[in-house]
Amino acid sequence: MNVLVIHGPNLNMLGIREKSVYGEKSFEDINDLIIEEGNKLHINIEIYQSNIEGEIINKIHEAYGNKDAIVINPAAFTHYSYAIRDAIGSVNIPTIEVHLSNIHKREEFRTKSVTAPVCIGQISGFGYNSYLLALRSLKMTKNS
Amino acid sequence: MNVLVIHGPNLNMLGIREKSVYGEKSFEDINDLIIEEGNKLHINIEIYQSNIEGEIINKIHEAYGNKDAIVINPAAFTHYSYAIRDAIGSVNIPTIEVHLSNIHKREEFRTKSVTAPVCIGQISGFGYNSYLLALRSLKMTKNS
Amino acid sequence: MNVLVIHGPNLNMLGIREKSVYGEKSFEDINDLIIEEGNKLHINIEIYQSNIEGEIINKIHEAYGNKDAIVINPAAFTHYSYAIRDAIGSVNIPTIEVHLSNIHKREEFRTKSVTAPVCIGQISGFGYNSYLLALRSLKMTKNS
Amino acid sequence: MNVLVIHGPNLNMLGIREKSVYGEKSFEDINDLIIEEGNKLHINIEIYQSNIEGEIINKIHEAYGNKDAIVINPAAFTHYSYAIRDAIGSVNIPTIEVHLSNIHKREEFRTKSVTAPVCIGQISGFGYNSYLLALRSLKMTKNS
Amino acid sequence: MNVLVIHGPNLNMLGIREKSVYGEKSFEDINDLIIEEGNKLHINIEIYQSNIEGEIINKIHEAYGNKDAIVINPAAFTHYSYAIRDAIGSVNIPTIEVHLSNIHKREEFRTKSVTAPVCIGQISGFGYNSYLLALRSLKMTKNS
Amino acid sequence: MNVLVIHGPNLNMLGIREKSVYGEKSFEDINDLIIEEGNKLHINIEIYQSNIEGEIINKIHEAYGNKDAIVINPAAFTHYSYAIRDAIGSVNIPTIEVHLSNIHKREEFRTKSVTAPVCIGQISGFGYNSYLLALRSLKMTKNS
Amino acid sequence: MNVLVIHGPNLNMLGIREKSVYGEKSFEDINDLIIEEGNKLHINIEIYQSNIEGEIINKIHEAYGNKDAIVINPAAFTHYSYAIRDAIGSVNIPTIEVHLSNIHKREEFRTKSVTAPVCIGQISGFGYNSYLLALRSLKMTKNS
Amino acid sequence: MNVLVIHGPNLNMLGIREKSVYGEKSFEDINDLIIEEGNKLHINIEIYQSNIEGEIINKIHEAYGNKDAIVINPAAFTHYSYAIRDAIGSVNIPTIEVHLSNIHKREEFRTKSVTAPVCIGQISGFGYNSYLLALRSLKMTKNS
Amino acid sequence: MNVLVIHGPNLNMLGIREKSVYGEKSFEDINDLIIEEGNKLHINIEIYQSNIEGEIINKIHEAYGNKDAIVINPAAFTHYSYAIRDAIGSVNIPTIEVHLSNIHKREEFRTKSVTAPVCIGQISGFGYNSYLLALRSLKMTKNS
Amino acid sequence: MNVLVIHGPNLNMLGIREKSVYGEKSFEDINDLIIEEGNKLHINIEIYQSNIEGEIINKIHEAYGNKDAIVINPAAFTHYSYAIRDAIGSVNIPTIEVHLSNIHKREEFRTKSVTAPVCIGQISGFGYNSYLLALRSLKMTKNS
Amino acid sequence: MNVLVIHGPNLNMLGIREKSVYGEKSFEDINDLIIEEGNKLHINIEIYQSNIEGEIINKIHEAYGNKDAIVINPAAFTHYSYAIRDAIGSVNIPTIEVHLSNIHKREEFRTKSVTAPVCIGQISGFGYNSYLLALRSLKMTKNS
Amino acid sequence: MNVLVIHGPNLNMLGIREKSVYGEKSFEDINDLIIEEGNKLHINIEIYQSNIEGEIINKIHEAYGNKDAIVINPAAFTHYSYAIRDAIGSVNIPTIEVHLSNIHKREEFRTKSVTAPVCIGQISGFGYNSYLLALRSLKMTKNS
Repeated sequence: MNVLVIHGPNLNMLGIREKSVYGEKSFEDINDLIIEEGNKLHINIEIYQSNIEGEIINKIHEAYGNKDAIVINPAAFTHYSYAIRDAIGSVNIPTIEVHLSNIHKREEFRTKSVTAPVCIGQISGFGYNSYLLALRSLKMTKNS
Repeated sequence: MNVLVIHGPNLNMLGIREKSVYGEKSFEDINDLIIEEGNKLHINIEIYQSNIEGEIINKIHEAYGNKDAIVINPAAFTHYSYAIRDAIGSVNIPTIEVHLSNIHKREEFRTKSVTAPVCIGQISGFGYNSYLLALRSLKMTKNS
Repeated sequence: MNVLVIHGPNLNMLGIREKSVYGEKSFEDINDLIIEEGNKLHINIEIYQSNIEGEIINKIHEAYGNKDAIVINPAAFTHYSYAIRDAIGSVNIPTIEVHLSNIHKREEFRTKSVTAPVCIGQISGFGYNSYLLALRSLKMTKNS
Repeated sequence: MNVLVIHGPNLNMLGIREKSVYGEKSFEDINDLIIEEGNKLHINIEIYQSNIEGEIINKIHEAYGNKDAIVINPAAFTHYSYAIRDAIGSVNIPTIEVHLSNIHKREEFRTKSVTAPVCIGQISGFGYNSYLLALRSLKMTKNS
Repeated sequence: MNVLVIHGPNLNMLGIREKSVYGEKSFEDINDLIIEEGNKLHINIEIYQSNIEGEIINKIHEAYGNKDAIVINPAAFTHYSYAIRDAIGSVNIPTIEVHLSNIHKREEFRTKSVTAPVCIGQISGFGYNSYLLALRSLKMTKNS
Repeated sequence: MNVLVIHGPNLNMLGIREKSVYGEKSFEDINDLIIEEGNKLHINIEIYQSNIEGEIINKIHEAYGNKDAIVINPAAFTHYSYAIRDAIGSVNIPTIEVHLSNIHKREEFRTKSVTAPVCIGQISGFGYNSYLLALRSLKMTKNS
Repeated sequence: MNVLVIHGPNLNMLGIREKSVYGEKSFEDINDLIIEEGNKLHINIEIYQSNIEGEIINKIHEAYGNKDAIVINPAAFTHYSYAIRDAIGSVNIPTIEVHLSNIHKREEFRTKSVTAPVCIGQISGFGYNSYLLALRSLKMTKNS
Repeated sequence: MNVLVIHGPNLNMLGIREKSVYGEKSFEDINDLIIEEGNKLHINIEIYQSNIEGEIINKIHEAYGNKDAIVINPAAFTHYSYAIRDAIGSVNIPTIEVHLSNIHKREEFRTKSVTAPVCIGQISGFGYNSYLLALRSLKMTKNS
Repeated sequence: MNVLVIHGPNLNMLGIREKSVYGEKSFEDINDLIIEEGNKLHINIEIYQSNIEGEIINKIHEAYGNKDAIVINPAAFTHYSYAIRDAIGSVNIPTIEVHLSNIHKREEFRTKSVTAPVCIGQISGFGYNSYLLALRSLKMTKNS
Repeated sequence: MNVLVIHGPNLNMLGIREKSVYGEKSFEDINDLIIEEGNKLHINIEIYQSNIEGEIINKIHEAYGNKDAIVINPAAFTHYSYAIRDAIGSVNIPTIEVHLSNIHKREEFRTKSVTAPVCIGQISGFGYNSYLLALRSLKMTKNS
Repeated sequence: MNVLVIHGPNLNMLGIREKSVYGEKSFEDINDLIIEEGNKLHINIEIYQSNIEGEIINKIHEAYGNKDAIVINPAAFTHYSYAIRDAIGSVNIPTIEVHLSNIHKREEFRTKSVTAPVCIGQISGFGYNSYLLALRSLKMTKNS
Repeated sequence: MNVLVIHGPNLNMLGIREKSVYGEKSFEDINDLIIEEGNKLHINIEIYQSNIEGEIINKIHEAYGNKDAIVINPAAFTHYSYAIRDAIGSVNIPTIEVHLSNIHKREEFRTKSVTAPVCIGQISGFGYNSYLLALRSLKMTKNS
């Protein structure tokens, strides 16, 4: 199983940025944990980060035909990037939206996701474990 | 580790109600899967379902001092029960909100949760696996 | 033909409560009129009243497999009980929403029904005759 | 008892227009059924249809002093014709608003009626039976 | 000076319709008073009433090149007829909007005029005197 | 007949301020025209201007028992002074709201009047003639 | 004088729940203080608490004919229970709404009360003294 | 190919009305250009204009079974005529909405079309060429 | 204990103004009752009334260092005076907001208080007793 | 005549992405058709596609002084890219907005264009023909 | 160069009021710093403070013909004083709006300025330096 | 002192783009003036411009540890780039938002800044002097 993990804007600054909100772990630490979990679950992980909306779209397009699933933390793009929403719709690959913090606890504008309606589901508030839970869900028997 | 799993209104009708939205598994099937997962994770599960908002509040109060965490699917109460929100706030037990369907994909009124802001996080869209993922998150090293 | 007639909160106070809005007849008088009309139409009527949202949900669930139709006056629950809405959706029994007063003539909040979208139709403003008309509609040839 | 039945715009296309929403019966079929029901109930029925808002207003004015009640399906005018609303208010004849489809189940703009607040009540969702139920309500003992 | 006085929908029912709001005088009485005032002010008055929006538009178009001013009480059309608004804009004749009742005192929807922004001004709340004041304003030295 | 004419804030700057909107005449010119019209109509005019909301309220209170009517141009206070609204309500003297410019043609915020609902009526858009028309309306036979 | 004091949902958790918002006193302490104040004021107090909306409605109905006044802290139900609003309306007993915290200082959703419009008045922000002040108001000469 | 071209209210005043917005060409000039283009494209054109909403509806109904397509400029009706919207829906003839001016550049209320959702598409801002482009689109190979 | 009682705009007209809303007692009567209650409670009362927002602000500033508490009925200023809100914030003296009428029962605009969020609490609906209850609350043991 | 055709984000996935909405033709097919139409109309076409908002802005800047017109399908950027709006404004080249699907028929968020107000016009709903119609409009005599 | 510096309501309490928001410096300290900066820049400064909206308006009127510029911190009046807005418009003197705190960081109501649209610009968030920067801007070559 | 000056999208077109709004100076002229002012104030200036949101984010990240302050004109991104907002939050460098034009005077959408809440302050409306004032503010004694 091949999974693309996409980190949206500013996530490369993790461990620096607003630690009280996003936690102490650095971006590299989190990526290591994701890969480690992938190994445990027999999932090949490719990690990608960009601060440029269009590059994330390009990456999603590249996944077409090559990946079995996408785990994406669109970060701030969650709240306005209809272009990423359409990108997910265009490749038709099962996609899971994750957030480090509980977006329902923060500023009003963060409670709305324009990308979640084209995803399988959303996992929000578990720190880096949000990513790990998303991976795990991919190994569970599909049900609804 | 003792965990209370609360099912909100109409979830007892699972397997009967709108299968295209909520899946084929019956309520009993899902509870068996939750308990089985609890066993695997060494979590003692107590399952509770009620269609009465106030009984769910009573149950949350009873958990005070007795449970280490709550996993709750408030179902329709998600969207208006400020009383359940206050109940979760009153006991100060780590609580995870789960939904079978992806609430961001459905009617506008279902995209807003009044209970999520007092929870650790929200898992939405993975069918019964939403519950299993919530349990699993409780065993992960806390991080943010 | 078996029909469940559900009265929502405060309807047990009819004849006492705001007579200028709801009329002079007592709750018992109205129930007698409903049963009498049922007799005329060869409909077996079961009447149920509760002030507790969840008990109404339980009653709707019980109707599953036992009743051919539901006539419901959700009273104040009309305007916020997404849980009753989901209960009606879960049993898939033809349901008619009725109101004594014309809800479009009163406070702004009363003009919106969250339950009507899952019903066959809504009859509003004919006093106790709203119930009788609902029963009668059940005997008419289905058309649309 | 003399009753004016008014059909608003596009109802003359019934049986042609969006059958999945409005049913298979033609406009003439429905009018025959209304007159037949009038006969049964000893109600003299006059049927009127126009696609022109102002002609409907003229018709309502003509009813002043000549009709005992009006049954009106304002169709699309339901949602914006304050002029028809004022016409009903100007003649002070008991008026019942009817709709073939359940307006609460359709596009958001159809859920709001600007005419219902000046009517006795509203019957919505019973196909052509909505008209028949309105007629029947006129023969019932007035109560509230 | 030639002035066209236009009465919108339902004003032909004055003296019948909601007397507590619109006063006791009949439509004919008011027209007599308007013409009498016109005589006093040396204004030739043509009076027109229609319940049909498009006929009012036709009449406004006819005024082009023939009338020096229009006094219009658009009645219910005040609140939604963008077509009458455009008609006034299309002929470029000085137009005054009048209302019998004080529209700011009544239902919320009546406080908004879509036609007033293309008029010289609005006079509201003086009963039939609203028309007389409009005529008188036309004889005053223009100033701003 | 004794009438108090109240000019709200910044009207003392007339002839200086935004001439394209408010006209060329100075404040003194306009007051002379008002008094002259009062003479013609046998109305004793007292003119008052203040930029201080509370002084206008004091003046309205003083009118109690001394004036037969008030003509007020609340200027910017039109849009937010609930205190002037209550002052008019407290003295129960017939009050007419006037505006030089057509407030429905300008910025969105100027289209709403919080004071008009407690006045007899509103005259807007006739330059200084708005005041003269208001005086004239006071001499007309009351009707509605 | 017989007074029913109703505590809404989660108030039984006082002294446990969010002390920084609601204070240190336990639920029992507060009830003792209410009864003590009742004794001072010669008011017979009955205290009732429930987390179930419908049970509170039942209790309000029972008060009909038996109590002279109701003091109610609807807690979270303040913001959405139109059913409790209707219950108060149905019994026509003078009712006072109280809140421990100043609801105008907290989350936006807490600033709106759907029950206050059917009460005599509202007292908010004085901790348990809100109840005592409500009792005291009942002994004061009625005035407005 | 038979095409009905419908001009909505006030378009008969083209060349007179607000030339800076709608251009210098007269209504007749534009109709000549439409027919000429029709000739070039082997389309039989019938042109219809009315200021009466209901007459436009009648015309749309008449097209049923007789026309292959409709090109409509609903003018001001674009923004509120749900009745024309339903008329288009009732005949199920491919319909194209056109506008002379770019409606997205003008007053807020003009940016919303209630008729466009039942049309194939919308062409806005090309002056009379909007009509010609609509005709041309009808001759192009259908694609989406 | 020194307490400043501030009456906002138009309260000096009490007993004259809208008696059905505000009661029969005159402004002087009410002040006498406040002082009398102050005497009973050993509170030195200073009473101040102004119709000028800025003078009320000046008075609040003067209280700084001189008063132990403020009881304020901001009347109409309640709904828009962010300046009085800031004045209360600037002196940091415990302040209680009172209203004669139940502001939640009246026009929509009166249900919102911009000053309450910087006060200890709000007492609304008890006529002049609202002031007396506020004084009494100041003598109660502080709790929350 | 030199025309720049810009395709916004995800349009490179045409033929893959949501065929029921956007059609069967591939991106290359459509570009061929655009160039072919350009040849017919003696228009030199340059085609550009990017998923990166800023690159589209750069391209628009480059067109300054080099192109006679721009045809742009901003795709998802239509709904939020004020930056592209400003880019079009900055180069002052006649620009036409096109859409494959009828944006007025889809999700609410797609009905609003932030770029259309700075374009000549908008063509929406004709599949790839929307581009061809835009090109054709550029060859038509300018009129308005 | 003569400049009027106007401080709005409650600014006289600086150094007392909410120091965490507005800083430690007293009102007198700040005025000294403004005058000192004026001296450096060869600007004659007149400083004015009032808590009365209308007095600020009077002061702005007095500046007409006497001052070259106004620097105003309207404080709470920023958010609702359309009267001060009109005063600035009436004198047509270049005016700069300043704020001590960053109004975009605080309560929602503080983010909106009704006065800024009639000013040259706004400087917000630099403490007393906001005033000094405003003065400095007046000495810079005008550009835009 | 090292300061990064960031120009957002389309600012590279200054002197070309909408001169009536943004002024006559070219982008290069303005940068020269900024550097010159930096020299005067002993500030090392690095100037950066991009039309790509993500590149601006990258640049802000690079500033971490290298710059003492950022002066940013986010141009159109001001109104929707939550990603730039988060970038500023992630590096925790004092940042000042500047605008050439007075954003409060223009289209409604331009009055809202999503980036200002994470900045020290905002300077808007002084043309290129907005940048110079921002630099100057950095040399002033910090106060609030």
